Amino acid sequence: MAIKDAISALKESFGDQITTSLSELRLHGQSESHFRNMPPDAVAFPKSTDDVQRIVSICADHDCPVIGWGVGTSLEAQTSAVRGGVTVDFRDMNALLEISQEDMFARVQPGISREALNHELRATGLMFPVDPGANATLGGMASTRASGTTAVRYGTMRDNVMGLEAVTADGKAIRTGSLARKSSAGYDLTGLFVGAEGTLGLITELTVRLHGQPEATSAGICAFQNMTDAVDAVTTTIQTGIQMARIEFVDAATALAFNAYSGSEMPNLPHLMVEFHGSPTAVAEQSQMFGDIVKDHGGSEFEWAIEAEDRKKLWAMRHNGYYAILASRPGARAIVTDVCVPISKLAQAVDETRADIEGSLIPGPILGHVGDGNFHAILLIDPENAKEKQAALDLSSRMAERAIALGGTITGEHGVGIGKLDYMTAEHGDAWALMTQIKKALDPQNIMNPGKLIRVN
Amino acid sequence: MAIKDAISALKESFGDQITTSLSELRLHGQSESHFRNMPPDAVAFPKSTDDVQRIVSICADHDCPVIGWGVGTSLEAQTSAVRGGVTVDFRDMNALLEISQEDMFARVQPGISREALNHELRATGLMFPVDPGANATLGGMASTRASGTTAVRYGTMRDNVMGLEAVTADGKAIRTGSLARKSSAGYDLTGLFVGAEGTLGLITELTVRLHGQPEATSAGICAFQNMTDAVDAVTTTIQTGIQMARIEFVDAATALAFNAYSGSEMPNLPHLMVEFHGSPTAVAEQSQMFGDIVKDHGGSEFEWAIEAEDRKKLWAMRHNGYYAILASRPGARAIVTDVCVPISKLAQAVDETRADIEGSLIPGPILGHVGDGNFHAILLIDPENAKEKQAALDLSSRMAERAIALGGTITGEHGVGIGKLDYMTAEHGDAWALMTQIKKALDPQNIMNPGKLIRVN
Repeated sequence: MAIKDAISALKESFGDQITTSLSELRLHGQSESHFRNMPPDAVAFPKSTDDVQRIVSICADHDCPVIGWGVGTSLEAQTSAVRGGVTVDFRDMNALLEISQEDMFARVQPGISREALNHELRATGLMFPVDPGANATLGGMASTRASGTTAVRYGTMRDNVMGLEAVTADGKAIRTGSLARKSSAGYDLTGLFVGAEGTLGLITELTVRLHGQPEATSAGICAFQNMTDAVDAVTTTIQTGIQMARIEFVDAATALAFNAYSGSEMPNLPHLMVEFHGSPTAVAEQSQMFGDIVKDHGGSEFEWAIEAEDRKKLWAMRHNGYYAILASRPGARAIVTDVCVPISKLAQAVDETRADIEGSLIPGPILGHVGDGNFHAILLIDPENAKEKQAALDLSSRMAERAIALGGTITGEHGVGIGKLDYMTAEHGDAWALMTQIKKALDPQNIMNPGKLIRVN
Repeated sequence: MAIKDAISALKESFGDQITTSLSELRLHGQSESHFRNMPPDAVAFPKSTDDVQRIVSICADHDCPVIGWGVGTSLEAQTSAVRGGVTVDFRDMNALLEISQEDMFARVQPGISREALNHELRATGLMFPVDPGANATLGGMASTRASGTTAVRYGTMRDNVMGLEAVTADGKAIRTGSLARKSSAGYDLTGLFVGAEGTLGLITELTVRLHGQPEATSAGICAFQNMTDAVDAVTTTIQTGIQMARIEFVDAATALAFNAYSGSEMPNLPHLMVEFHGSPTAVAEQSQMFGDIVKDHGGSEFEWAIEAEDRKKLWAMRHNGYYAILASRPGARAIVTDVCVPISKLAQAVDETRADIEGSLIPGPILGHVGDGNFHAILLIDPENAKEKQAALDLSSRMAERAIALGGTITGEHGVGIGKLDYMTAEHGDAWALMTQIKKALDPQNIMNPGKLIRVN
């Protein structure tokens, strides 16, 4: 047994940095979404890049799969051990290695969480803004090309990872990128590893771009009669050159779930939640211009949250959206979908998805990032009911097809994992085969997170 | 002769879309920089992606090199036919295929120039801001990951190409990216082809991000006692969150060259040239805040160019910098260098380069993009004097080494071509070998722009 041999060799080299305890295996086999538990055969806890190199080398010697692990918050089973093997848990590689105030970057190990990083940054005047909701690790966020509420202003992980160190399938450590803000020196390997979901190597260090904490912030919420008006207001805002730091929408079903969960009193209508960052003058000007645009598009009077505490409440409500929606159907489990379309097609995509869900067996509130055209339906199913699960998967499948038909993508921020494999050909055609060529060239044994993103025959 | 056979087959298929006229070969063998003329054996003028696919397939059948050509403004001999072969000139594939005002993108063929695109956009309220100075084609700019004066605000080609179509070495056409503003659906192939200098395939279509034309613009120029003060002023500005649309520096030697060429009256000192975009209020606020920061750092009073005509003059002076510097030594030819360092190291890098040039035989004014840490020395040599050429290449070599030692990169925007091959190992170590693995996987015959960016044994 190749995997068994790998684990014996690992235990010999690493002692108690390797565990095969059933509870650890089960924990690392669990996905945040609807996938069954797929445990690895062992979990390794490296303390250094050198450890990771030795772990991968031993696994390569024995054709044993290697799966990276941050905190397990990915949503398409990116960390499930579909063929068993060794999960590499980066919990002991979570250091903040360097902050440069002048050049506005941080060098970190992959196991640091975004909240931990921002906690360390709080006195520097700088921040790391990418915010997928979950308190994910930077390594995990880079691997799935995560984004979230602030991408409309600060970009996704693609835009915020300047360089990285990765251990490839042959056990070598490579470094990509530099500390300069741009480069034309060869293929963009940083961009290749960001979003590769651990299928080309394990990220062992990252240099991420930091941004100035905004001098002033204002946030607010307002209601619209329908999604089309809400989206039109946002499109006009973007074209006017007004920079939003966040621009989120929730549909009427989500608003009702918020009311029940957080005690808010939102009308039974779609809403926009917006935030501006900048100088006090700029924020005031932008808020006012945005308010005018909203009025022109039939939006309600804005409720502004000027005080930090009110803003915190507003965004806590948004960040707890998943739990609010889950609580709206007691005992339910959620299948979380994720598609992204051109902004001009967002209202159509949401309306068609809304109608599709309403014609199905199950509830599914919709919410998302309007500025990116990215949205999620939280499909609530009775976990004991196979028909409901199938209905949810069918809805998700039609969402993916709809997104492609509208010029969009099957996933805006959750990644492919195993959940979106079936739609890769429809989105990419021959370009998926080209991705497979790259995978085969860099990982000929197919040991790095096999079964995810790529289907190797 | 494999190449001869390829050309015969091409002529049979394409008739007068293929030329072997000596003047065309010479024209397509010429580099904008110091490299000798390296002509191809034929030039092809495709009219469609299908044409490009058939050209590449025929070349692949005969192991014949294929080199892409926009207008030949690259600076590291990216278009030179080092092993002969067929140059694919995209002059007849220069159409603007689609503009989306709502989703703010343009779909173009690779042969369109940035000025032609912006001319078409002038009535739309949108613009394509990436500006490398030369009126390059979009295909060429994407292939070298070009940037220029506006990258500090709008990003480089990496940030502004949303997707593309490329013909790979096997003659297949693949499509990457989507019309959505972000995606997590697999490896970032768009990012892989941008900056690949035609070594992985020929770009046959691009979808590029457009930006709103700014409501208000202001630009200005001021002098500093030294580079450190100038750079410190810029660092403070960035940290304050003030967004500059352009922030350029020229050294004292460049200022004198401007005076002689454009009749300006700049003091014999380093200067900053800056531009702000935004609402009238925002531009006024930012200009004033920047003026205050400049004063704090010992800068001179600002000369603001508020009127469009004055701004045009200011930036024409900057864009003609190369010619102004060239004219400062009659009969000279220029070797243009390009490195990029962390902004905190920019003053040191420029000062050390300045001292190095002053200790050499040749003049070399320095100018660059402070907001990115990217700068160029224009090394002026007597083309008949081999010693001067060697001195210039040695200076360029030390600039590259210095950039790496300071955490930067050997090229910020000009690319690798053949001019920077010698420093790829120093910058990337084993990561260059990984680039080579990708090249070999996607182009096993090494026919796509061979001899550039990668050294295949």
